Amino acid sequence: MTIQQTGRFTTEQDLRAAIRSGAFTGHTAGLAPGKLQCNIAILPAKHALDFLRFCLRNPKPCPIVGVAETGDPALPTLGPDIDIRHDLPRYRLYRDGQFAEEVTDIAAHWRDDMVTVALGCSFTFERALMAAGIPMRHVEQNRTVPMYRTNLPLVPGGAFGGTMVVSMRPLRGADVPRAVEISARYPHAHGAPVHVGDPAAIGIAALERPEWGDPVDIADDEVPVFWACGVTSQHALLSAGIPLVITHAPGHMLISDIDESSDRPI
Amino acid sequence: MTIQQTGRFTTEQDLRAAIRSGAFTGHTAGLAPGKLQCNIAILPAKHALDFLRFCLRNPKPCPIVGVAETGDPALPTLGPDIDIRHDLPRYRLYRDGQFAEEVTDIAAHWRDDMVTVALGCSFTFERALMAAGIPMRHVEQNRTVPMYRTNLPLVPGGAFGGTMVVSMRPLRGADVPRAVEISARYPHAHGAPVHVGDPAAIGIAALERPEWGDPVDIADDEVPVFWACGVTSQHALLSAGIPLVITHAPGHMLISDIDESSDRPI
Repeated sequence: MTIQQTGRFTTEQDLRAAIRSGAFTGHTAGLAPGKLQCNIAILPAKHALDFLRFCLRNPKPCPIVGVAETGDPALPTLGPDIDIRHDLPRYRLYRDGQFAEEVTDIAAHWRDDMVTVALGCSFTFERALMAAGIPMRHVEQNRTVPMYRTNLPLVPGGAFGGTMVVSMRPLRGADVPRAVEISARYPHAHGAPVHVGDPAAIGIAALERPEWGDPVDIADDEVPVFWACGVTSQHALLSAGIPLVITHAPGHMLISDIDESSDRPI
Repeated sequence: MTIQQTGRFTTEQDLRAAIRSGAFTGHTAGLAPGKLQCNIAILPAKHALDFLRFCLRNPKPCPIVGVAETGDPALPTLGPDIDIRHDLPRYRLYRDGQFAEEVTDIAAHWRDDMVTVALGCSFTFERALMAAGIPMRHVEQNRTVPMYRTNLPLVPGGAFGGTMVVSMRPLRGADVPRAVEISARYPHAHGAPVHVGDPAAIGIAALERPEWGDPVDIADDEVPVFWACGVTSQHALLSAGIPLVITHAPGHMLISDIDESSDRPI
């Protein structure tokens, strides 16, 4: 997984073509380095205004980087040829708030009232941190980053609300300020951390039992650093009990044509 | 006008109370210094999803800093006591894309399907520029900043689109880089300029004939600097011909409780 995959595809268009044809159905960590990758949520227009309001009020966990027209599978601001019905490696369908199935194409499920919302993703700041020599433990250990429910309240919007989900990366003390400064440069990719240190202070009982992803080792000279996580939006979508929601499968993101250091991701 | 008014009200809540009671119906330039002021657009929910998409795709002219629930006159993320039916000094009503009337309260016009959208405003970066010793000619000359239609295309959203409206401030050459750096720190208030120099390059025929606001003098050692302008959203709203749109009257903004240097204006 991860950065070893870099370079297997010459361009992000090549990679999307492989995904579109079904030839590539793996996760996208480390692929198309430098290009913005996106969390994807697809929901009926009836609920889209509320969902956008929710995201706008909670920009750290839910940074909007693109919104499609109603019923239109294109996302031209993220890439001129994107067709969201085919261009994720894997999708998850949820009906009435319950997981229904995982698929590699959603053309059969597409409807004229569907609205696609693209949110920024932690791959962006992780790449910047690693480029600055700050190691990511879950990458070193070939695991999925650990994610936790917290007691940090979200600003509600319509039926959407609840508490924030965070991801955790253990860092050495000297790396914490640099990691804050660097990740703060990417507000469209969760920005600066939301908490450093004591997990109990934000309602996390046990770091060794993440709600999503895998636990990672924490050394004695390291402190846990928590970033707002895109799973927050998925959790809010499911809690709202919408009849049909389609999301990317975890780690199987949309590859955009946008430079992830762009100041205008939308 | 302008900064001479500073200090007449002790707090932004006092100022809003005076506005709410109808005691204050003037413009808000220079009032409640340091607090985020907002352009306001109020439109039927039927059109709100498209308008949010349009704003999200054009964040420089249309930086969203708050969105109310449908039918709810509160904007709790901008101030716990805000009631948008009373809390602007002056409003303009547009019916079917045409100006209808200017009023100081919209309680009589409020409907259960109205959605309020708050956008950032140039007062924020102007204050920062003046604090850095960069003079604002229109303030010196006690005029409204000159605004122009351009040929800079917007990314459309539903019925909303067209070209960008910009405001112009003449600056000395040495001040231009500093003005860019400083205003870039306020992405929720139009951010960095969109153009420096030749007006014809962005479709402006004559700086002495602005479409809105007043012309200002430009000295020989100065260059015109153009920022994306909140009038863009009003222009797009009117062009879309929506049955009823309510906006602030030019310069008569919503005073929020939010620190304008906040990194989380929503």
